[in-house]
Amino acid sequence: MSDPNDVTLTPAQLHAHWQGHRGLTRKVIEAFPEEALFNHSVGGMRPFATLTMEFLRMSVPTLRGMVTRAWESSEVPQATTKAELLAAWDRDTEEIEQLWPRIPVGRFQERDTAFGQWEGPVYGTFLYIVDNEIHHRGQGYVYLRSLGIEPPAFWER
Amino acid sequence: MSDPNDVTLTPAQLHAHWQGHRGLTRKVIEAFPEEALFNHSVGGMRPFATLTMEFLRMSVPTLRGMVTRAWESSEVPQATTKAELLAAWDRDTEEIEQLWPRIPVGRFQERDTAFGQWEGPVYGTFLYIVDNEIHHRGQGYVYLRSLGIEPPAFWER
Repeated sequence: MSDPNDVTLTPAQLHAHWQGHRGLTRKVIEAFPEEALFNHSVGGMRPFATLTMEFLRMSVPTLRGMVTRAWESSEVPQATTKAELLAAWDRDTEEIEQLWPRIPVGRFQERDTAFGQWEGPVYGTFLYIVDNEIHHRGQGYVYLRSLGIEPPAFWER
Repeated sequence: MSDPNDVTLTPAQLHAHWQGHRGLTRKVIEAFPEEALFNHSVGGMRPFATLTMEFLRMSVPTLRGMVTRAWESSEVPQATTKAELLAAWDRDTEEIEQLWPRIPVGRFQERDTAFGQWEGPVYGTFLYIVDNEIHHRGQGYVYLRSLGIEPPAFWER
């Protein structure tokens, strides 16, 4: 029977799950031709580079807030080339590796108000950034298909 | 510091998180005009009704496998109208409510081979179906925008 103390996934498993998704997002960035990455869209939606910069703006600042309990938005440099975008992505990957082990014990179950605006359990704030990346990356798959490009397999992380 | 026994989210929280996403997917189904739900696509991808039937084919059969350790694909009736699709969705919502409390304690951390094919930890198998729904629903957002229809807000669960 359902037990409130049953383990769904551990912090280390959640970390690996997220980095797996981030690795797939990196492959999607790479799959775009340079020009289309910054300019192609469908239905008037934002190009994939703009979506990627949203992921960068959300991910590490949220993780820092989880670690320090201080919520500070950070300036994300506007990337104008695919190489700059991938370099920013890789810097975040490294920073996540450094920050993750510093999340205080019990922190996922605390309630907090992220960036002074979004109140809820910390696990919910965290899942929001992962889900948001999956959601918008799904958009990127449509952009690629509409360009005649086969996207990377969803299950390859 | 990171503690392997730290709680990320409980089974009840993971359940609520999933049903929240499923509620959003239901709103996306509803947002489509009947004809477009079954026929509209972008970039040669599957229409949203076909994607929804994939969610139905994966969700409850996976949850049954989590509960019983038996992996049986089930026939999903082919819906041909929006009303049929929504009715199938609502039946699943109910069945998930019945099945979830029966997931055995410790089950998320077991390894298993889902449907005789996909080997891995049960939490990973479960997250795959949630992530797959978020991913393809993101596609549905592009379909709606390309039809000039405002999709439901991503954060409304």
